[in-house]
Amino acid sequence: MITILTGGTGGAKFVQGVVAAVPPADVTVIVNTGDDLTWWGLHVSPDLDSVAYALAGLLCRERGWGVEGDTFECLARMQRLGAQSWFQLGDRDLATHLRRTQLLASGRTLTEATAEIARSLHISARILPMSNDRVETRIVTDTGELSFQEYFVRERYRVPVHGVHFSGAAGARPAPGVLDALRHTDAVLIAPSNPVTSIGPILAVPGIRAALCETHARVAAISPIVGGAAVSGPAVELMRMRGLTTSIAGVAEAYRDFLDVLIADQRDAATAPAVEQLGISVCLTNTMMDSDHAKLALAQATLEAVPQRRQRAKVNSAR
Amino acid sequence: MITILTGGTGGAKFVQGVVAAVPPADVTVIVNTGDDLTWWGLHVSPDLDSVAYALAGLLCRERGWGVEGDTFECLARMQRLGAQSWFQLGDRDLATHLRRTQLLASGRTLTEATAEIARSLHISARILPMSNDRVETRIVTDTGELSFQEYFVRERYRVPVHGVHFSGAAGARPAPGVLDALRHTDAVLIAPSNPVTSIGPILAVPGIRAALCETHARVAAISPIVGGAAVSGPAVELMRMRGLTTSIAGVAEAYRDFLDVLIADQRDAATAPAVEQLGISVCLTNTMMDSDHAKLALAQATLEAVPQRRQRAKVNSAR
Repeated sequence: MITILTGGTGGAKFVQGVVAAVPPADVTVIVNTGDDLTWWGLHVSPDLDSVAYALAGLLCRERGWGVEGDTFECLARMQRLGAQSWFQLGDRDLATHLRRTQLLASGRTLTEATAEIARSLHISARILPMSNDRVETRIVTDTGELSFQEYFVRERYRVPVHGVHFSGAAGARPAPGVLDALRHTDAVLIAPSNPVTSIGPILAVPGIRAALCETHARVAAISPIVGGAAVSGPAVELMRMRGLTTSIAGVAEAYRDFLDVLIADQRDAATAPAVEQLGISVCLTNTMMDSDHAKLALAQATLEAVPQRRQRAKVNSAR
Repeated sequence: MITILTGGTGGAKFVQGVVAAVPPADVTVIVNTGDDLTWWGLHVSPDLDSVAYALAGLLCRERGWGVEGDTFECLARMQRLGAQSWFQLGDRDLATHLRRTQLLASGRTLTEATAEIARSLHISARILPMSNDRVETRIVTDTGELSFQEYFVRERYRVPVHGVHFSGAAGARPAPGVLDALRHTDAVLIAPSNPVTSIGPILAVPGIRAALCETHARVAAISPIVGGAAVSGPAVELMRMRGLTTSIAGVAEAYRDFLDVLIADQRDAATAPAVEQLGISVCLTNTMMDSDHAKLALAQATLEAVPQRRQRAKVNSAR
């Protein structure tokens, strides 16, 4: 059994690699929902959708989000009707949000709605939201707080960030199955996602970080930092704001209380000793997922790096 | 000023003819909302939309509903996700329902949401829902009650009907502007809509029928029955169930307490005396709206048939 923690587009691509390497039914994916938003009255879960689309072979390769070959007729009409349109939903993508909203309105939990959508798309891997309670990633800027999508999509992460917090996290509970999937698994893989705003919200749900520290499975993280820069998105800026080193060492710092091995790109070899100083092994490989083959190779390299069970639980549990 | 009462696809086509004949800003359209439904969690108002699309030049000519050239990508995906799909929403059409639902959720009335959508589509005629209160047309069948869309679209009106009632009508109020538009107008035109399920719900809203009886404007109705049969839909079956004659005379009977003139098709000339026996004038013309020219000609013939104001209010007000 393999458990993956993920958020964002890099994470979805990594999940594709893992299900190419091992039977999908052996994979549980725990997904960030801190980016969720109500858009046009619909419950949109960008990270859950990216994972579902990736697993169903529907994810748009070029954009990295939404459905391959999707059209935007409804969006164009919404613009004409005076609705906001900076967050783009394709016509096929829209169905997922309509269906999720409908299932939630009928009393299903987000876990149940996610499972039903995954079943309809013939996905055998298990997709779990991190929590069924609302946790909202809030970005503190000069002009006030923004939701993650306002910051990331509307402002294209060009505004200076002074802080990030996860509204609702303190009172949130891990969704059913999440803690079990961390405790009873052969390996936990942290996808190459932004440590602050993709993995951060998951770790902010009380109980999840402790389960990572206590699990007997080995924990590997794939660095989203390659050659000292983020492959995409504002990871470097947000890590700096959080006081983390802006290198693969910073990724290791973010996870140091539970991480066993960091999978980093070969071009970051020079920084490996700084990671090893934290008591974390480094596995150097090619981490750029620019083809299906590269995704599979990264997944295989990661799985090879976490063969054994931990000798003992990590001790220095934080938060 | 011209006030039209309408519902259904024939009504929308007639409205197109009227705004070709007179300045659209002089036209108020009072629309049936008894067919409204919640679909995929959205507030869908089929008759309001048909009128808006007709007035914006967007109405699909072939189908008679929805948007010309619309695509159905979202619908196809909703089917795949296990949602019901017998009521079809196109991708562009969907935007109208999303926007309306969003406006209603933000506290606007249906009147306000309708006005905002109409403004966005650059419609100069005034579109008014009959009521901002929920009135639901219920169809009594062998197997229980159906909503109008379940009866009309899902069952394709092939099930025997034992009764029709308008749930919520007794407590409903006419929407703002409706009574004024009936009282302060030069003519009231009842579109060639089903008298039972398109005009019936409007007349069931307390105050509207009385306003039609009391107005000093002349009231004309265009018969949806041509050559003794309905141009489309279940008008004949529903009129028979209601105890109305299944001819142009039955249309006159449905409106006898307020109708001044019935516009009927030339091929129904033989039935004209039966209408005139009710004290209602008959104007024979071509009522088949199979081209833009025919729509305009029907509107012109109707407007010519209602030149004068009534000498006195109709007396035998019902309900």
